[in-house]
Amino acid sequence: MSSAHRIATVNKYVEAFARKDIGLIRQIFADNATVEDPVGTDVHKGIAAISAFYEGSFGADARLSLTGPVRCAGNAAAFAFEVHVAGMKIEVIDVFEFDAAGKVVSMKAYWGQENISQ
Amino acid sequence: MSSAHRIATVNKYVEAFARKDIGLIRQIFADNATVEDPVGTDVHKGIAAISAFYEGSFGADARLSLTGPVRCAGNAAAFAFEVHVAGMKIEVIDVFEFDAAGKVVSMKAYWGQENISQ
Repeated sequence: MSSAHRIATVNKYVEAFARKDIGLIRQIFADNATVEDPVGTDVHKGIAAISAFYEGSFGADARLSLTGPVRCAGNAAAFAFEVHVAGMKIEVIDVFEFDAAGKVVSMKAYWGQENISQ
Repeated sequence: MSSAHRIATVNKYVEAFARKDIGLIRQIFADNATVEDPVGTDVHKGIAAISAFYEGSFGADARLSLTGPVRCAGNAAAFAFEVHVAGMKIEVIDVFEFDAAGKVVSMKAYWGQENISQ
């Protein structure tokens, strides 16, 4: 799929947090998608588990802002951003992999203790 | 392995470009490592192919500068940076995966046409 579609999907993902709109999350992810956030922890499998995960984030009033351009390569898009939640700033890099239908089929979030500040 | 080791490895990678030091590349990567740069193109397999790939980059006088903190998660480290090469700036995100010995066993670079500027 086009880079333009992938960049638009990342922007829709940021917008989903701003609006707390789980409907946008359901548009973005494939039914069989996986979400690993952060990498190395339990994987959320399938749209029901993924929706529950993001509802938790939205409930915590997490807000995202990109800190650089979306990088598109192969079937993927990678992007760096800050999350502001619960008085903290967390600096994260996400990698989305897309399926042939243009849905995100794999999301991996890279962040650790060193990336959390007050 | 520790986050400190992974962050030091990323800094050594940046230093390898500054010094054009292929010896540092050989320290960083496992013998059986793979490098996919950008994702979606042919994979360089094994330290000989990887060394040849980086010798080409060093010959082109590519210089790297990080544009945010290294994100460590699971067995991986992700980082955003700029490459300055041949009068261009390329904005890239790399993901390194480490083996149990602390060597980089997989490198994936995410960037596309949209990330190249003069």
